Amino acid sequence: MAKILRVNMTDRSVKYEDVPEKYRFMGGRWLTSSIIADEVDPTCHPLGPNNKLVFAPGIVTGTNAPSSGRVSVGGKSPLTGGIKESNAGSNWPQFLAKLGIKAIVVEGHPSDAGWWGLHITKDGAEFFPADEYAGRSLYEVFPLLFERFGKKVAIAATGVAGEMRMAMAGVCFNDTENRPSRYSGRGGLGAVMGAKHLKFIVVDPQGAPGVEIADKDLFERGRKKLIEALRTHDITKPKGTLNTYGTAALVNVLNEAGAYPTRNFREGRFEGAATTSGEAIFEGNKQRLGKELYNHGCHPGCIIQCSNTWHKPDGTEYVSCIEYESTWALGANCGIDNLDDIAELIWLCNDLGLDTIETGGTIAVAMDAGLLEFGDGKGAIRLLREEVGKGTPLGRILGNGAAFTGRAFGWTRVPGCKGQNMPAYEPRAVKGIGITYATTPMGADHTAGYTIAPEILGVSGKVDQFATDKADLSRNFQHSTAFIDSSGHCLFIAFAILDIPSGFEGFVEECAGVVGADWTGDDVMRIGKEILDKEVAFNRAAGFTSAHDRVPEFMKYEKLPPHNVVWDVPDEVLDAVHGA
Amino acid sequence: MAKILRVNMTDRSVKYEDVPEKYRFMGGRWLTSSIIADEVDPTCHPLGPNNKLVFAPGIVTGTNAPSSGRVSVGGKSPLTGGIKESNAGSNWPQFLAKLGIKAIVVEGHPSDAGWWGLHITKDGAEFFPADEYAGRSLYEVFPLLFERFGKKVAIAATGVAGEMRMAMAGVCFNDTENRPSRYSGRGGLGAVMGAKHLKFIVVDPQGAPGVEIADKDLFERGRKKLIEALRTHDITKPKGTLNTYGTAALVNVLNEAGAYPTRNFREGRFEGAATTSGEAIFEGNKQRLGKELYNHGCHPGCIIQCSNTWHKPDGTEYVSCIEYESTWALGANCGIDNLDDIAELIWLCNDLGLDTIETGGTIAVAMDAGLLEFGDGKGAIRLLREEVGKGTPLGRILGNGAAFTGRAFGWTRVPGCKGQNMPAYEPRAVKGIGITYATTPMGADHTAGYTIAPEILGVSGKVDQFATDKADLSRNFQHSTAFIDSSGHCLFIAFAILDIPSGFEGFVEECAGVVGADWTGDDVMRIGKEILDKEVAFNRAAGFTSAHDRVPEFMKYEKLPPHNVVWDVPDEVLDAVHGA
Repeated sequence: MAKILRVNMTDRSVKYEDVPEKYRFMGGRWLTSSIIADEVDPTCHPLGPNNKLVFAPGIVTGTNAPSSGRVSVGGKSPLTGGIKESNAGSNWPQFLAKLGIKAIVVEGHPSDAGWWGLHITKDGAEFFPADEYAGRSLYEVFPLLFERFGKKVAIAATGVAGEMRMAMAGVCFNDTENRPSRYSGRGGLGAVMGAKHLKFIVVDPQGAPGVEIADKDLFERGRKKLIEALRTHDITKPKGTLNTYGTAALVNVLNEAGAYPTRNFREGRFEGAATTSGEAIFEGNKQRLGKELYNHGCHPGCIIQCSNTWHKPDGTEYVSCIEYESTWALGANCGIDNLDDIAELIWLCNDLGLDTIETGGTIAVAMDAGLLEFGDGKGAIRLLREEVGKGTPLGRILGNGAAFTGRAFGWTRVPGCKGQNMPAYEPRAVKGIGITYATTPMGADHTAGYTIAPEILGVSGKVDQFATDKADLSRNFQHSTAFIDSSGHCLFIAFAILDIPSGFEGFVEECAGVVGADWTGDDVMRIGKEILDKEVAFNRAAGFTSAHDRVPEFMKYEKLPPHNVVWDVPDEVLDAVHGA
Repeated sequence: MAKILRVNMTDRSVKYEDVPEKYRFMGGRWLTSSIIADEVDPTCHPLGPNNKLVFAPGIVTGTNAPSSGRVSVGGKSPLTGGIKESNAGSNWPQFLAKLGIKAIVVEGHPSDAGWWGLHITKDGAEFFPADEYAGRSLYEVFPLLFERFGKKVAIAATGVAGEMRMAMAGVCFNDTENRPSRYSGRGGLGAVMGAKHLKFIVVDPQGAPGVEIADKDLFERGRKKLIEALRTHDITKPKGTLNTYGTAALVNVLNEAGAYPTRNFREGRFEGAATTSGEAIFEGNKQRLGKELYNHGCHPGCIIQCSNTWHKPDGTEYVSCIEYESTWALGANCGIDNLDDIAELIWLCNDLGLDTIETGGTIAVAMDAGLLEFGDGKGAIRLLREEVGKGTPLGRILGNGAAFTGRAFGWTRVPGCKGQNMPAYEPRAVKGIGITYATTPMGADHTAGYTIAPEILGVSGKVDQFATDKADLSRNFQHSTAFIDSSGHCLFIAFAILDIPSGFEGFVEECAGVVGADWTGDDVMRIGKEILDKEVAFNRAAGFTSAHDRVPEFMKYEKLPPHNVVWDVPDEVLDAVHGA
């Protein structure tokens, strides 16, 4: 029987607990948000002893279900002050699930100053002193840990930004090449890990019993349908859009739509889009490597395989990977049009333990406020390396995110919701995603309800990007997404399962097969709603109201080129999403 | 007929408007909060074009009512994000009232970068370029303005902190010696003035018609009763407690009660209390001047006269004045026990345009987080002069207040409510004032409902400082205070009117006499409630809930010496104050 591993940092004890019946079907976000809602006082200080940090593999994670190596990390966010689920792909949750661990709940607060790691094997979990790794580069530390614990372990970590309790610190996981490059980036959960003085969780899968599957036939039937859908859809199939150009395939699409936020959301189109796009990455690699390079997966068993690697002129590796959000955040949003500078900035984020989206948004606000010129890539690199990395006062301003930086400089143009900066879709030009930004309990987050699919990409139908009456659209995406985030699947399966009915069927059967539930498609929305209701209720108790379900004021009076549009979605639409 | 002066910074226009009937009886806080509630979108950015800054003399200000030269400054606070009224004493509101100006409403936002002053005379209001005064010391600039506009004008100003839009910037007024030393300090309204690029409002009373009094007999009758009460009560009478020792007379009293917050609210008793108290100031001055020095008023016509002046060893002036809150904030709360260091810190606050309470609270949090040693007065002076004054990154952290500084350094021990740091009474040791801190719409503020009077001072009865059932007590004080803040009287008349019934009667008659109302004592509470209801409603619409009507979490689990008490007031008591 799977267990919950409870880790108490106050007395450095661990305990394996039976999974309560109410959590039996749960995984991923469903489980992290339920535990947080059940156990954490919504008014607690996110960096204090009463916050908890929960890690949960998805429902099917650790099985051979395709593209399902995702982990949810949950807690009260130091960035937003609300509940948080932040999702990453790695073999780490696969190993955890195979060891029969349904969730790790990290709680308490050490009274001493030292740093600790947790080493989990089939025989149990043990602390190890980690002082020797503190204050150091993750690119330097990861190889040392793999040397110490074996190449086949997996690692969750917080970097120096998290040690300094900076609100844009993420939780880092290794990728398939053991690089520190996969992130539960958003919401500052790396700072919660840092506040608890837990540097690493090392998971060794040797001798793991594997994930129990309640109804193997159902699971297998569903798995095949989902695989078929993923192998068929143009976006997710091998050598399809994502496998070839990565998520950065979106750059030209959004730029064309006039919805690619440029220079701190001053414009919707970037003159440097073409040189920083997925196509530019593919062509640049071809030129530097002398051959075509297709992408790899963030975890074993992924069919989509969207993670790219950028190479230096001499053909050696620069960084993996340049996601759409990263090339945008550290590129267009800062006016930077040079892929090598962007690669260096991403490398620094990985190295220091930072969310690339919040980092780019923060540098953009700082540039807007006059700290640097837009487009100054070398200046941005210096800010990360010399200021954030060293925890100077300026680094502590920036390290706490875009809204914080805006306040430090008395700057009103901060494009965030609930303290979290917006990602790479301009809400004035694509209203549905703005409704998601404003109303998701997560703070501005595209992955919380990706209405871009029908609004821009023509997936699951096509709706006008400027239409404002999209409460239902956003809500439906938010609910279905919450279930996908709970399943352990990558959100990108959505492209295939939204367009291919048998794929959706297979997805549900697969999840139902693992836990032994009799779920149908309707249950996806029912469970998704249950998750959102819990999260919204947590936030309400934490002090959020409908006044927080809004985009920043400046978007209402500042017109966005090239469409010269303002934010004109009525508040009533926003309040209709989850109820005011 | 009195007018409202509307000042538009977008096009730099001014307009004298008739006072709407609904505002006819109003003054001070009643009027500022009503205008803000009527005209400002509660969700606007405090530093954006849609916030407004309102200045209003009290109902009787400008008449010969005793101790009534108070001004209310109102707006949406950049420190708390809620409605704000911040109160100061000066001849400035007396002049304004005599010119027949009931309120100044500053609105809009300039599109250019320059700084402006407004010069108001009996003939109208005119802008003057103020670039030459920007970026400079207020102690240097005030004499230049008095030279330019005449010694008998009065000045409202924002300092360099306000120019930099720092959230602990106050609005500065001259005192009777034309020093830049009287502050509407709390809530960062100096930053709102700075964001609007309005450096000064200079008021020239020459030829002013004076305040119209509707019922002169009633007014005169009331005035005499109030004067009699003020001249009789031990705290307010000439050579009484306040006139002799100033507000710092409270140091030893609160220290004795174990409720004098020390070293960022780690303890309730300070070993350096005796050397930084009102008695120490009186004795120190006597020694340095060779004679006893009694205090002066912050405006003409004050009977209480509680403003002291501290002198250097050579007998020259150091600073005026060392208030209780200032000697505490920059003394005990930072572990600093040296009056000369405290005086230097106060001088710097006055000079830069900072609220002394928030400044001391911020330095204390920074010390607690390890930036300086507690007690390092010279280090604190350096922080203000070299960092805040020069707007370095560290200065921008500190300049935005204690909560902001806590977040910058990932520090959980921040003793504030709604983003505003607590003043000099420990809520764990005096529960009623904690209830006021938590529930007033102003953010932690002792003046919003001074339950210390019965809890510690034995004024208006005596209640146990540790008793928790004080929702009614706090609410009654909050309501009555709101009316006093509207009357234009100094809050310190409360000592006399709470203990002497005829004084209270006179106070009401005086106010009623000016506006021609038939108010009785009941109306004081009715109007006070009306004001609070408006303020609470504004905050609710701005996104505040009962979750914000709380003291910081650490006070619930950290025991305060010497009484070893935690915050144990039930949430239900807090929610009962204004309704959850």
